[in-house]
Amino acid sequence: MTKYKITFLPHEKQITVDEDTRLIRAAMDSGVHINASCGGEGVCGKCRVIIESGEVEAGVSEMLSPEDKESGYRLACLARVKSDLTVRIPTDSFIDARSLNLQATPRKTAKIRELNLDDLKEKGLFVPPMEKIYMALPPPSDADNIADVSRMVDFLRKNHDEHRLEFDLSVIRKVPEVLRQDDFKATVTIARPVREDGKNRIINIQPGDTSDRNFAIAIDIGTTTVYGEMIDLKAGSVLARYGDFNSQISYGEDVISRIVYSEKEGGLEKLNERVVSTINTVIGKILKKSKVDPGDISTITFAGNTTMTQLFLKVNARYLRRSPYVPASIIYPPFKASEIGIEVENHVTALVYPQVSSYVGGDIVSGIMGSGMFNDEEITLYIDIGTNAEVVIGNKEWMVCAACSAGPAFEGGGIKLGMRATEGAIEDFSIDPVTLEPMNVTIGNVRPKGICGSGLITIVATLFELGILDNRGKFNRELETPRIREMDNVYEYVLAWKDVSGTDRDVALNEIDIDNLIRAKGAIYSGCMTLLEEVGLSIGDLGRIIIAGGFGSYVDLEKAMTIGLLPETDPEKVIFVGNGSLMGARMSALTNRIRKDVTSTVKRITNFELSETQSFMDNYIAALFLPHTDMNLFPKIKARMDERRKYASNQPHGEV
Amino acid sequence: MTKYKITFLPHEKQITVDEDTRLIRAAMDSGVHINASCGGEGVCGKCRVIIESGEVEAGVSEMLSPEDKESGYRLACLARVKSDLTVRIPTDSFIDARSLNLQATPRKTAKIRELNLDDLKEKGLFVPPMEKIYMALPPPSDADNIADVSRMVDFLRKNHDEHRLEFDLSVIRKVPEVLRQDDFKATVTIARPVREDGKNRIINIQPGDTSDRNFAIAIDIGTTTVYGEMIDLKAGSVLARYGDFNSQISYGEDVISRIVYSEKEGGLEKLNERVVSTINTVIGKILKKSKVDPGDISTITFAGNTTMTQLFLKVNARYLRRSPYVPASIIYPPFKASEIGIEVENHVTALVYPQVSSYVGGDIVSGIMGSGMFNDEEITLYIDIGTNAEVVIGNKEWMVCAACSAGPAFEGGGIKLGMRATEGAIEDFSIDPVTLEPMNVTIGNVRPKGICGSGLITIVATLFELGILDNRGKFNRELETPRIREMDNVYEYVLAWKDVSGTDRDVALNEIDIDNLIRAKGAIYSGCMTLLEEVGLSIGDLGRIIIAGGFGSYVDLEKAMTIGLLPETDPEKVIFVGNGSLMGARMSALTNRIRKDVTSTVKRITNFELSETQSFMDNYIAALFLPHTDMNLFPKIKARMDERRKYASNQPHGEV
Repeated sequence: MTKYKITFLPHEKQITVDEDTRLIRAAMDSGVHINASCGGEGVCGKCRVIIESGEVEAGVSEMLSPEDKESGYRLACLARVKSDLTVRIPTDSFIDARSLNLQATPRKTAKIRELNLDDLKEKGLFVPPMEKIYMALPPPSDADNIADVSRMVDFLRKNHDEHRLEFDLSVIRKVPEVLRQDDFKATVTIARPVREDGKNRIINIQPGDTSDRNFAIAIDIGTTTVYGEMIDLKAGSVLARYGDFNSQISYGEDVISRIVYSEKEGGLEKLNERVVSTINTVIGKILKKSKVDPGDISTITFAGNTTMTQLFLKVNARYLRRSPYVPASIIYPPFKASEIGIEVENHVTALVYPQVSSYVGGDIVSGIMGSGMFNDEEITLYIDIGTNAEVVIGNKEWMVCAACSAGPAFEGGGIKLGMRATEGAIEDFSIDPVTLEPMNVTIGNVRPKGICGSGLITIVATLFELGILDNRGKFNRELETPRIREMDNVYEYVLAWKDVSGTDRDVALNEIDIDNLIRAKGAIYSGCMTLLEEVGLSIGDLGRIIIAGGFGSYVDLEKAMTIGLLPETDPEKVIFVGNGSLMGARMSALTNRIRKDVTSTVKRITNFELSETQSFMDNYIAALFLPHTDMNLFPKIKARMDERRKYASNQPHGEV
Repeated sequence: MTKYKITFLPHEKQITVDEDTRLIRAAMDSGVHINASCGGEGVCGKCRVIIESGEVEAGVSEMLSPEDKESGYRLACLARVKSDLTVRIPTDSFIDARSLNLQATPRKTAKIRELNLDDLKEKGLFVPPMEKIYMALPPPSDADNIADVSRMVDFLRKNHDEHRLEFDLSVIRKVPEVLRQDDFKATVTIARPVREDGKNRIINIQPGDTSDRNFAIAIDIGTTTVYGEMIDLKAGSVLARYGDFNSQISYGEDVISRIVYSEKEGGLEKLNERVVSTINTVIGKILKKSKVDPGDISTITFAGNTTMTQLFLKVNARYLRRSPYVPASIIYPPFKASEIGIEVENHVTALVYPQVSSYVGGDIVSGIMGSGMFNDEEITLYIDIGTNAEVVIGNKEWMVCAACSAGPAFEGGGIKLGMRATEGAIEDFSIDPVTLEPMNVTIGNVRPKGICGSGLITIVATLFELGILDNRGKFNRELETPRIREMDNVYEYVLAWKDVSGTDRDVALNEIDIDNLIRAKGAIYSGCMTLLEEVGLSIGDLGRIIIAGGFGSYVDLEKAMTIGLLPETDPEKVIFVGNGSLMGARMSALTNRIRKDVTSTVKRITNFELSETQSFMDNYIAALFLPHTDMNLFPKIKARMDERRKYASNQPHGEV
């Protein structure tokens, strides 16, 4: 994709962005504030900028007069980059020179770890669990009338050094006809054993040469969403991806309410049927998108939390929510996906990620495996932030883990106008420190309807850094702006007035919302701290921090540290992996090494029940501040805050 | 059972028999002829005997006058032994003193090899493939909340030295509830691996202690009949047995017509459904007879010929009957019996015997394994006589085998009044050499309806030894008796006139029937000879002959040699094993050693297509005589015949 350099004046900030990036996003990412509250539909007309040189597409609206247009004015929320640009922010869009210094720190997302097949091959990790071999067999004769299956076994032994072969009954049923369809030329799919002394299992046979077409599906079964990927096992590439809401949602938002429902008469069967149906929808979509022939699918790998896994496998989940929280099993055997209602051909083998405990499940194990953490020397902190949060610390020698009752704040739950990261969600934000006017960036560039997880973190971090919120998450009552107000005895900040919002009311964030966010981030942070204490380590000992979870890819790393969600470390140490569960599922479809190591890895993980851990409550209470009671844990933020205070005290308005 | 000694006068023959044995059977087995043509219903009244001492039950009928009864006359076909007896055969029942010398040789059945658990244990062969272990687990607590399955695994490892355990998904589904049903006391069923480095698979879990109740079902799937046994794996005993006709029969009597039907639209499915339904009937009966709880069944072992096996497993059988006669597979993997419609609980594992070729199937392999032939030093000839006949020669080092197109004569097929060994079938026979009056013994002691396989052999052998039939199977046209007559240009011997027969016509055996018998026995004999020649051996090299097949248990060994069905050898070398297929199925249910060895055994067997073997046709033609063209192969019969001729030439009637 073509890249262009944008220079913002008078700040003289530069940023390089992709063609077609909207100017408001470019400004936000370079740390330049532009008043903008309507999210990008050109409704509020506040985000006027002047294109001094270069070319943009769109950016005009009825909010601009003909003269404005003539003078190069465009709306930053609509204008898309088409060349290198020089863009001036008019004074009415930032008002005060102070904002040149006080703008938000540039948005910084961490590196995203991507699958790299060459890398895998180099490490000897590319050992697909399913291989296809083409056979041109000598047809039988009077002098050579051994059984069809024996003929194949002989051929594979002699020509491909394949030993210890076994056959599924369903394959044997196909063999006589398939062999005779193309004059004893056919292709077999071989499931490789995990152990070296295991058997090579022939799971499918197709007439002719289909050895170039070998595919796998990876599925992440989340409480909220189900994601699937179509993987080309030959090329090691992802051909299609699709996500859908887990249709169990109508029986409850979180795992506890699902378990409660599963205990009702027929409840388990109903929830099972629902998730299977969602998975089938996802599979149908990626089949269609990738144009893969269903007959060429060899395997499906599944990763999900313990509750999702048990419901998917139709295993009673009742005891997961009852003390002492006992899962049915850690490890599940491979089985035929069609047996459980997955709409694939009968030969397709299902592999399910093992669990650690009732609240640290296969999605986390999958992330540990897929991210390579299980095999690393350096000590890694792995945090998966989804409907709940799980934390793992360790390396190839040892691991400890815990589930944190973070609640669903990061998915928009417990927040008055919280929402999932869908169209209309404010996902990025900046504020003019003087006028306190907002700059809202929404998903889909439409009018704001609510706030998603990454938006929430950015808003709270920004308000906190500017002193608009104090370290308890309370608004500065002395600021004079209509945007901070008391409603029903609760203080709130209005992000978008109802005339520019995507709903019929003001979009605001209140202190109760902020309190919920603080509890959520406090749970995660204190979970990390408690685990570190249990193994006698501190944050400085961490070589790497991996953040998994759909929202991870969008969150601003420094902002997450500012609110104390993540421990303050060198941002270079932080890696976002997005959907870690799906990543691990993909990896185990691509290489048997993962399946081989996962059992020993799971056995190496020690699970901590935080509620049973002495120090957890102290750590939690200390973490219920922005960013923390002990600011020495956050030296960089402390330094920034101190500097800001110093600067503010030199300003006429006093502290802002 | 109480035994009694019977002395027959004037012959002064003695025999020891079980209480309640019918006198006519006792006479037959001791070689004493009594005229008796009605088979045992007391209708012809010819079998009058005098009880000189001792006690019988029944034996009176309206055919006896009050004076007769007073004098101790009884009908031998009705009277049952109740004490030691002295029984006189009145002269009108044997007429001529010559019959004292010329009576049939005593019936001699060979030893029957019976399952002996102690023997197995001694040889280290008693390793049940399915074991049950009772577990009293420590219930979970806050401090010990590992997964239910992990709790079991830990317990089994620590307390029973069980390692490499794996679990069926269906078991994991049961675990949480079952463990909590009886305070974490439960019993698991473990499927033992065949290889030492295999996995121990938990296939079932039951609440409480059920370790004393561990059962298996063995099934022989014959073309004509399906037999099942319920086996107590703990005691090593057979609790119940039941046989039924394979309901595929309505689609054809033999394997070829079944295959033809299976090629029709839906034919394979129909035949599969039929045999599964028969198996379910058999299982239902043995469950009822044995009073075993279906939940306590651990495994089902199946043995059948190649066609029956493929139809049972729903594997296309089309190529079995087409040159070059290729079976789909030799070996089939274990599977869940319920998957194929067998009405047992989901956990029950089905094990199927492997095949050798299209016409030497799992029933033969089963017999080879069950009889221990696979493990013997001495060279054994194994003959299975069923709807077809298969022959195996070899020892623990090597084996050769062939299928003989014997046709169904031994099951009553191709014989005008042939019938299966059911009620009313003449199963034993003797003849008065002077009057040529018969002594018929029928199954069920009812009027004769026809002739079963063992009866056929005995009748033809007896007629041949007395010169009533010549060595081409033709009746001596010069004998003057109404029982030998020409009907529709074919000579026949009337066994029972219609007034005493169980049908509305005379029961007779004609020369066409005898010709069919000769072809059948010729095919088997020449099969044996051809195989022996192929490996450069002769009959004298055989250490043992094993006869399998339902009819084997009833056939008179010397008579079978007399007609040339079996090579003439020391009768001590011959062992009847009855249903060899069922025996092997039973053995593989009892011990894994069989399953371990069967694969290598099958690979050691060389299959000969007799029709492709040069010498077979010569051997066959030479065998189309009674007993054979070359009487030097049958020295004992030759000697007996020579003596008889000498004796006969001294008698006034001339040769009889």
